[in-house]
Order: sequence, then C-alpha cells, then structure tokens
Amino acid sequence: MSVLFPSGPVGAMVIGGESVVGTGEEIRSADPRTGAALDPGYPAASAGHLERACALAEQAFPVFRATTAEQRAGFLERIADLLEERRDLLVERAHTETALPAARLTGEVGRTSGQLRLFAAELRAGTWQGARIDPAQPSRGPLPRADIRQRRIPLGPVAVFGASNFPLAFSTAGGDTASALAAGCPVVVKAHQAHLGTAELVARTIAAAAADTGMPQGVFSQLVGNGTEVGARLVGDRRIRAVGFTGSRKGGLAIAATAAARPVPIPVYAEMSSINPVLLLPAALASRGAELGAAFAGSLTLGAGQFCTNPGLVLAVEGPGLAAFISAAADAVAADAGATMLTMDIAGHYAAAGDALAARDGVDELARGGRPGSSACGRARLLTVDGARFAADPRLQAEVFGATSLLVRCADTSELTAAVETLEGQLTATVHADEADHSLAAELLPLLEERAGRILFDGWPTGVEVGHAMVHGGPFPATTDPRSTSVGTLAIERFLRPVAYQDVPTALLPAEVRDENPLGVWRRLDGEPSRDALAVDSAD
Amino acid sequence: MSVLFPSGPVGAMVIGGESVVGTGEEIRSADPRTGAALDPGYPAASAGHLERACALAEQAFPVFRATTAEQRAGFLERIADLLEERRDLLVERAHTETALPAARLTGEVGRTSGQLRLFAAELRAGTWQGARIDPAQPSRGPLPRADIRQRRIPLGPVAVFGASNFPLAFSTAGGDTASALAAGCPVVVKAHQAHLGTAELVARTIAAAAADTGMPQGVFSQLVGNGTEVGARLVGDRRIRAVGFTGSRKGGLAIAATAAARPVPIPVYAEMSSINPVLLLPAALASRGAELGAAFAGSLTLGAGQFCTNPGLVLAVEGPGLAAFISAAADAVAADAGATMLTMDIAGHYAAAGDALAARDGVDELARGGRPGSSACGRARLLTVDGARFAADPRLQAEVFGATSLLVRCADTSELTAAVETLEGQLTATVHADEADHSLAAELLPLLEERAGRILFDGWPTGVEVGHAMVHGGPFPATTDPRSTSVGTLAIERFLRPVAYQDVPTALLPAEVRDENPLGVWRRLDGEPSRDALAVDSAD
Repeated sequence: MSVLFPSGPVGAMVIGGESVVGTGEEIRSADPRTGAALDPGYPAASAGHLERACALAEQAFPVFRATTAEQRAGFLERIADLLEERRDLLVERAHTETALPAARLTGEVGRTSGQLRLFAAELRAGTWQGARIDPAQPSRGPLPRADIRQRRIPLGPVAVFGASNFPLAFSTAGGDTASALAAGCPVVVKAHQAHLGTAELVARTIAAAAADTGMPQGVFSQLVGNGTEVGARLVGDRRIRAVGFTGSRKGGLAIAATAAARPVPIPVYAEMSSINPVLLLPAALASRGAELGAAFAGSLTLGAGQFCTNPGLVLAVEGPGLAAFISAAADAVAADAGATMLTMDIAGHYAAAGDALAARDGVDELARGGRPGSSACGRARLLTVDGARFAADPRLQAEVFGATSLLVRCADTSELTAAVETLEGQLTATVHADEADHSLAAELLPLLEERAGRILFDGWPTGVEVGHAMVHGGPFPATTDPRSTSVGTLAIERFLRPVAYQDVPTALLPAEVRDENPLGVWRRLDGEPSRDALAVDSAD
Repeated sequence: MSVLFPSGPVGAMVIGGESVVGTGEEIRSADPRTGAALDPGYPAASAGHLERACALAEQAFPVFRATTAEQRAGFLERIADLLEERRDLLVERAHTETALPAARLTGEVGRTSGQLRLFAAELRAGTWQGARIDPAQPSRGPLPRADIRQRRIPLGPVAVFGASNFPLAFSTAGGDTASALAAGCPVVVKAHQAHLGTAELVARTIAAAAADTGMPQGVFSQLVGNGTEVGARLVGDRRIRAVGFTGSRKGGLAIAATAAARPVPIPVYAEMSSINPVLLLPAALASRGAELGAAFAGSLTLGAGQFCTNPGLVLAVEGPGLAAFISAAADAVAADAGATMLTMDIAGHYAAAGDALAARDGVDELARGGRPGSSACGRARLLTVDGARFAADPRLQAEVFGATSLLVRCADTSELTAAVETLEGQLTATVHADEADHSLAAELLPLLEERAGRILFDGWPTGVEVGHAMVHGGPFPATTDPRSTSVGTLAIERFLRPVAYQDVPTALLPAEVRDENPLGVWRRLDGEPSRDALAVDSAD
C-alpha cells in the first residue's frame, strides 16, 4: 500500500515507509462526547510486524546517523511543511477523537511544526555535537600527550509512546520523535489508542517526508496495539536503545522496570506525574488575592485540566487576601461549565481520584463545577486542607489528572516551608510574590530547585514554551530521569552519547572534530569554547 | 578524635570531618605478597554511623551547593596540595596494601592531584553551568514569550565506591569524588576493603582540606564495611541521589538493581567490565607484526594486567605478519616473570577465569608466563581461538581481570567484521592500521563507535589521559550509563541536572543567568553561545 496521503485514516500502521494493516485484535478510538467507537478499526500489530519495524530501524540506523545535520534538518522541516499543509484534516480528526477544541488543536499543529523547525535550527547551530579537542603534546613529560577528540553520536533506535492529552505535540511527531530524529536515531512509535486516526495521519506524513528527503526506509515506523503487550515487547526488543514516554506514573514505571530488566538495560525518559505546586506568598495574596483566585481557576480549568503542568496544588499562608483568593477561585470553579475529557477512561479515573482525595481526613470541598452532557464528563473541583494535615499525609500529593486542585492553608510561613519540604519531584513550581515577599521567596527558592524542573514567578504553569532554555522535566516522580527535558532543544541530548577518538588519522576523523572545522561547529579546544579551526602549531 | 593527619592509619572512618572508629566487625586489608593481615584493624560502620554520614551529607548539601565555583575550586586544590605533601606516606601505605610498584603509585598521586586541579580549572572555565537565556518577547503574537533561563544544579549527596586497582586515582579522592565535589554534591565513600589504610589517609586529607577551606561539616564522609551490607544500605538511603562505582560487573549490577528498586530511583554510574578489543589490520600486521606483538605484550602485562582498559582481546586476519605477531607476543608473555596481584581474591578469580576461558571449545594456549613467589600470584597468559568459533560463543567475551588475552584468528576481513559485530559494549577499541588499511578501518569505525566509548589508533588502550576530550565509559556492560564518562571534565555532568527559571525577578536569579553575566560564564543567548552580557533591549 502506498504512503500517499489519503483523504482520511484507513486503519493502518506505518512500517518502514509502507502502510501496513495489522493482523491482531481490532481496536478503535472513540468519540469522547458520545462514547461511540470510531471508524476505521485498527487491527493490532503481530509479533512479525514488531520484528519488521525493529529490524528496519536497526538497518536504517547506520545510514541515518551518517546523514549530515543539514540533511536531517531538511527531513524535519519537510515533516513540518507537510503537517501544516494537512492541518485541517489533522485538526478535524483530532477533534473527533479527543474533543479538544479546534482552535487549541490548530495551535497544537503549529506548536508541533514549530518544534520540528526548532530542532532543524539546533542541528545547524552546531553545539549538539559536543565537540572537544585536546591536541597532542608530543613533548610533554614524563609521557607525551596523545591527540584526543570527542563528539556525540546517537544511541540507536528509539521507542516513543505518545500522550493522550497532546495528540500532536507530544505524540507521533511530538517532542520525543523530533529530538530523537534530530539526534540521528530511527523512531518506532506505539500509537496512542485514544487517537489512532490522528496518529495514522501523522505517521503517514512522517513517512512521506522521509521518502521526499531520501531518508532510509526504516527511519520511522508506527505500531498499533491494545493494552501493554506491544509496548512492553517494543521496550524489551534488543534493537531499541532508548525510550521516550509521556503518560501515567503506572505506565512510566512499568516501562522503566521492563527496560531495567533487559539483558542490556536502556535509558527511559518517562514524563509521568506532577501536581505543580503554586505558592501564594503573603504580600502578593494581600495585594491581589481575588485577581489571583480568578487567574488560578482559569489555569486549572484550561483544557479540562488535562495538562501535565496543571496546578493541582496551591500552598498559601492564612492572612489578608486568602479569603478573597478562595472566594474568587471557588466562584470561578463553581461557574465552570465542565468539559468533555479525552476519553471515558480518563474521565472515570479523574472522578475516582478526585473522590479519593476528597475523602482523605481533613479535606473539604470548596467548590465544584458543572457537569457537561457528554459521555466523558469532567467537572472542575476545588478542595482544601490545612498545612499540618498536608505535611503528614503523603497521599494528599496523589495526582488527579484533570481540573481538580487542593488548596493547602498554612498557619504561617514555617508551616508553608514544611509543606514544601514534603513535596515529591515536580515538573514545575510557581511562586506568586510581591517585592515584599522576595526575602521569603529567596529562602524557598533552593527548596523548589531541588524539587522541580522549572520555577516560575507570577504566572501559571500551563503553557510550556518550546525554546532553548525550557526544562520540561524534574525529579522523580515527575520523570524517571531528572537530568533531562522532554521539551526544548536540550531534549536532543537524551539520545546522544560521547565517543573519544585518540590519535585517529585525519582522513578517518568525523568532520566535526577535524582541525579545520569544516562544519563550523562550536568546540572546546583544550577546554576553551571556540568555532575556530585548530591552530596548526598545536597539532602533532 | 581530631582529623589532624597522623603518622599512619589508625583504623578510623571519617564522618562529617571527624575521625570515628566503627563498632561493627573488624576487617583488615592484607599484604598481597604474603597474605598477612595488616594493622590497624577497621571496625565496620554501624547503622548509626551510616545514618549520621547521610544526615550530615543532607545537611551539608544546601550549604555546599551555595558555595561559589571559586570556593569549590579552592577546596579541590587544597585536597590536591595536601595529597602531594603526603605523597610519601600514601605511596608507602598503598604499596604495602596493593603490591603496586612505588613508582607507579607516585605517578598515581600526581594523577589524582592533577585530576582535582583539572576540575578546579573546569569550575572556573564557566561552561559546566550549562547556562541558557531565552529573553522575553513581550510583543510576540499570538502570545507573548516569557523570559526563560536555564542552569544546572547538583543532584545531591553522592555515594562513591572506589576501585581495587587504583587505590588513589579511582578511589577515595578519585575521579568520582572529584567530579561530584566539583558539581556541588557532598560525597559519602565506602572505603575499598583491599586498601583501608590508604583510604583512611586520603579521607583524612579530604577532611583536613574541607576544614581548611571552610566547607560544611558533612561535605565528605567515608565508611568502612565488610562485604555488601554497608554499601547496599548506602545506595538504598533516601538521601543519596547518585552513585559512582568502579569494579566488577557483578558488583555494578547489584548496585544498579538496588538503586532501581528504591522508592525514588537514582542514577548509577558503574564502570564494570571491558575486554578492550585490539584490531590488527592486514597491512599493519604485514609491515610490523613482530613489533606489534612485543608492544601488545607490554600493554597486556603492565601492572599485572590490572587495568579496566587492559587489552583482553586481539582480533587479527590470517596473513603476512600474524605469525611474527604471535611469535613475538608469545615470547614476551612466556618471558614475563609474573606479578603479585592486588589481593588473593583477585588472583584466585584471575586464575579461575583464565582457566574457564582456556577450557572453552576451540581455545588453545599460546604462552604462559612465570609464577612469582607471592601469595597473590598472577601469571600472564595468551590464548587463541578462530574467528568462527569466537563469533559463535559469547562466553569467549567474559572479562578476565589480569594479564590474560585471547587472540582471535579471523580467516578474512569479513570474519573480522562479523567478530566485531558480536562484541558487547567496551571502554575502548584499538585499531592498528597502515595507510593501506584505511578503507577497511573506515568501514569498521562506525561499528566500533557503536560498541566503545574511546577509539584509538596505533597505540594501546592502557593509560587513560585526564583531559577535556577523554571518554572513559561506553555501552553496557562497560558501564551502566553510556551517556557519561568517569574520567575527564565531562564527568561533572553526571551529577548535575537542568533547572529553568521563568520570569524570575532579577534579584532572585542565580548569578550565572543574570543579564550582566557577573560570573563571565559561557551561555546560550537565544541559542547562540556567548560570554557577553544580555543586551538591554532584548530584556523585558
């Protein structure tokens, strides 16, 4: 079957550039507004399909990693162009599968193509290679120093598991795929079963871009499977060398355990669970409590609260402005009409997790929003507890994926500090502070740095900028690997490793570490960053 | 008890700057020449000692990580100065405990102090912070861009397990400790039981340097324990945030399993097992077979073969020069007098592992060296097998720690390539190639890159330069984490993680990401490397 872009999804996977219909149990995505199963059906991948996708990825790897950064940049840009050309079709299908508003999905196409273009620019910027040269010192005593050069190379084929809540930007052509392809790693995606049609359309787009730009056949595949079987087999496959995952704590931990139990363990970059604490410091609360309450409720209910960075926890000190904050937030939550969530399963988990949180000792409900008339109904909810109780009950930190948040009322700033000290790892930590709060903020900042990947002031954590300085990551359980980010250009480093070349003849050296610096990349010459050629007199 | 440097070891640990005698079972190192247990005895750490070391490390962390790079550089340099002052005492004790020659140990003191000074220089160079600034774009549409800045911060207290074969450079004050301290991480060392006295002298030296430079009390501790109990409890302690280990595959895997099973898993940097293949290409072999054979035997038997980078595998193609290589290598191995190994256990494992390798089907012995008259006797040994058998029997890749190597005779270059394709991950891969071999070398190079952390031409893998471009690491089982190195300045990155700051008020920003760049560090400004201040017109 050709990969020519169809008018809509046909129920196929993509394996090595070809459209392939599975032979296993058929699965379908559903319209979350009605619960109705959608056409087409997707027969799952057989063991043979998985074998073929991994074998092709392995074959593609040496060819793909030998492409130039410019060639891979062209591939990423071609994907971006084609996604934009097909925007309307993508938005229509994603809207049917996820109930996310068309305007949001239109923006998400732009975010996805923009992310691909940013990695194309990063490939050209010439820093990701991590090039270093320590020239030989033939006359050094007691022993001469050899010529040693370093660059980064890609790890190998990467398995990617997309997210339910970003059918485009964190899924088939999302940040994990973009950064792995940029690094020179072939990608095998396990399609998210909540948006199989969107996944198929995007996978075909990647395959078309690969063909257009002459990339090797196995550079990209996408498999379909129900439950965890195909995914677990993919993570366990010897040819897969790293995993990118965005989803639940349970799912991420299962993948990490599978990866650690392999004969050859591999890195897993799982972005899992975060409640994104928001700290309201006393002066800010006193000066703008009501305003903060309304803005908080806006961030909480945005997109039915279905963001990894949703503010699920608010920590505030009793005092002037807190009543106004509560009143404004509770009013806004109560007035919220509710929204259709991504799937009926997610809506069910959301309601159950919220009920479990509300049932903990000392937790009271401040407000509850409306119930939309859809199958996968999500109602906003604001709960509260006091600071002493919060610090004593770790289960109050359980993530409720959706528009539920817990307001912790601390008796004083030392109770606030104690609450912060109990926090698990987070993607974000937000501080609202007026100038009079800055000395308290300065005390809290180191505690927040140790617990979060991104710290923001006087804003809201939802909305993750895609740039060079972004960190979308953080200590466990926010992710399985706090040394990385899944958004922004630093994400490419997840899929690279350093290699040193000692006294390798010039003709055999990779271009990025040759004396004359033909690629014009940034290098550390004897430790000093430079784009210069290596001076001849320091070569041996 | 004071940490004032004694005339010799007294049987103590170091906990938070104080000399503390354990209360558990007493253990002793032994003189490997005689097997005689050495004074003093070392009572092992109790659970309370471990608790205190970890609690002090946790308390020290916020203080230590807030020190300036200049202050930490001064601390590292003070350790280096004191190690050099105490060189004779260290060499004498280490010689007694390891039987390594005094000249080698004298060099190792210099390597250890040089490594500390290199990390001091790296701290001052201002690249390790990984600073990035994406300035705000208040007028960007459809949404303004926030100001986002990034730097790296240390992970937290690090547990370090030293190596038997480098009692100084890879032990108490070795590369793991130096890079962790440079990063701002307190260190808790589990002393190696084969050189407890050396470990004590070095630990006291670090404690004295910490006191001299005003470092917090818990910045460094060293515990003593028999077997695996203290080490496993240390890796499992909630306050430990990363582990550095150099040793056996079994030990490294046990530590990695313990770390992965924690409620909060942590990164483990274990350098474990490598047989360091040496490829002899046809033209090089034909032109200088005998010379290569003699030089190979020199590298094999250096230090009784007790290097992670010892050449335990030689791959050669049948043809002109191979007979001369074999003859020269076998003569040199047969003439080798043998050497006392580091411990009786290591000597026992060496003999048993060599016998197991020699007993595999198709393996023949080419030469065996002399037997020294010591308790921990190590005899050099050269074995051989044909290429087809090698490719078919993975157990021929088992590491034999010591001066045993296996020469694989390949019928042709395609059998050589097939043998390379079967190789596990390695620290190093060496190629001997004349110009006429370069096209074959170019074909092999990508295969070697995928299997090794360092590739060297026309030299020998023993001898690991400490510099900016070095990689002492590699794919599993060479290490548990191929994205890193345990030698060279890149090693600092193992103990750091990125944090992003969004719209954080200037007064609260870390110095390395302030507009004016007061520390003069390298930063990426909107992606472009620079040491400049941020231009005012791009700030918001």
